[in-house]
Amino acid sequence: MRQLTIVKVGGKIVEDSDSLSSFLSDFSLIAGDKILIHGGGRSATLLAEKLGIETVMVDGRRITDSEMLKVVTMVYAGLVNKNIVAQLQKLRIDAIGLTGTDLNLILSEKRPVKDIDYGFAGDVKKVNAQAFLELLKLNYLPVIAPITHDRKGNLLNTNADTVATEIAKSLTFDYYVRLIFCFEKGGVLLNEADENSVIPDLNYELYQQYKNEGIIHGGMMPKLDNAFQAIASGVKVVIITKASDLKKGKGTLIK
Amino acid sequence: MRQLTIVKVGGKIVEDSDSLSSFLSDFSLIAGDKILIHGGGRSATLLAEKLGIETVMVDGRRITDSEMLKVVTMVYAGLVNKNIVAQLQKLRIDAIGLTGTDLNLILSEKRPVKDIDYGFAGDVKKVNAQAFLELLKLNYLPVIAPITHDRKGNLLNTNADTVATEIAKSLTFDYYVRLIFCFEKGGVLLNEADENSVIPDLNYELYQQYKNEGIIHGGMMPKLDNAFQAIASGVKVVIITKASDLKKGKGTLIK
Repeated sequence: MRQLTIVKVGGKIVEDSDSLSSFLSDFSLIAGDKILIHGGGRSATLLAEKLGIETVMVDGRRITDSEMLKVVTMVYAGLVNKNIVAQLQKLRIDAIGLTGTDLNLILSEKRPVKDIDYGFAGDVKKVNAQAFLELLKLNYLPVIAPITHDRKGNLLNTNADTVATEIAKSLTFDYYVRLIFCFEKGGVLLNEADENSVIPDLNYELYQQYKNEGIIHGGMMPKLDNAFQAIASGVKVVIITKASDLKKGKGTLIK
Repeated sequence: MRQLTIVKVGGKIVEDSDSLSSFLSDFSLIAGDKILIHGGGRSATLLAEKLGIETVMVDGRRITDSEMLKVVTMVYAGLVNKNIVAQLQKLRIDAIGLTGTDLNLILSEKRPVKDIDYGFAGDVKKVNAQAFLELLKLNYLPVIAPITHDRKGNLLNTNADTVATEIAKSLTFDYYVRLIFCFEKGGVLLNEADENSVIPDLNYELYQQYKNEGIIHGGMMPKLDNAFQAIASGVKVVIITKASDLKKGKGTLIK
């Protein structure tokens, strides 16, 4: 089976032209088919601020009212996405910048209101694996901004880690899938204060143990839940690493 | 040969949800392969204003400094493009929203500075007809925002009429191409004050005569120059019409 590498890279890397350029040159060296998923939250928050729109986050998730939806659509699908595509095209890579709305790539539903109204936040229902396969067959490199839709005409803001995970899960019948989360730290740390305490290998039992011991907590937990969900669905390996370590093969390996 | 209809629709239509919805439902009824090119200038001017960025136009062309380039990229490639795609997907049309940067669809060069420095304005050098053919072969409907690039990593703001014309010209070897410019008036008018004075047919000789007589002038001239250039390059017919007349087959026909 052919190999597919899906990389999710956060806003901090793609919003700075030097770190983006260095990241993309490493990324371009990865052999085989590739898909890139990016964030852009810092630029969105900055634009919102300039427009007098308040950014409200709950558990790391953005509350997306209709004005904030316009902001994230402009920043993720416009500014950040097209800038990444332009830099990849400069490297002579046939990048195509898309959202989950294009080709109905990622169908979502508006998150139901329980305790919190997240507004136009989308929970992924279905990935159009067929369309991804068509694009990859043409040797295109899809660059995906985390905007999805409900096929009722509404755009929805969707967590980029989740988008990457769901795309990865949907393509395991056709590819040997590797999912890489680029992160600000070198990987999952045993001791948050020590950058050198990266856990090299993590399995589900060890994850449960570290959670129970309080070693792994906070924002790392949804990321690892996504990772183990991907593995359970047939993704061969998940790697959590620093963007600048992408080509060194370092980080936390999850199988 | 198969028929391809390329429609360019201006900002006024696509920025209002009622007129967009009505336009897209008419547009969706056109048989054969289609490409849609859109503007979005009014939203760009509005966003620029909110951000304290001054909009400067010279002969109907926007001066695009680096801050204005961010604005048009966000509005055209993000907000307007993805909203159109979401509405087409709602109609179960397999729309894919792209810019000239994606797949290197439209390679441009930064306009040289002569009397006026237009900033990051792109003059089209080459259309990647092969990529358009690949997308159309998959029955995708490309929705194109008028942002191009120079393949040196720079995004460039490009006139949407020109983008539509250049795409049309590039596909005449493979398609019987119809190019439709949707316009606020019913077509080219003999008398600007009379909406009912639409010239039904226009050829090059008549155009020259009307220009000499001062009947056709101002902003209509670059549009018609584009139209006749398209015809000279093998486009079968150009139609200038009102968006709301799209399915009525009215307007000015240029052969």
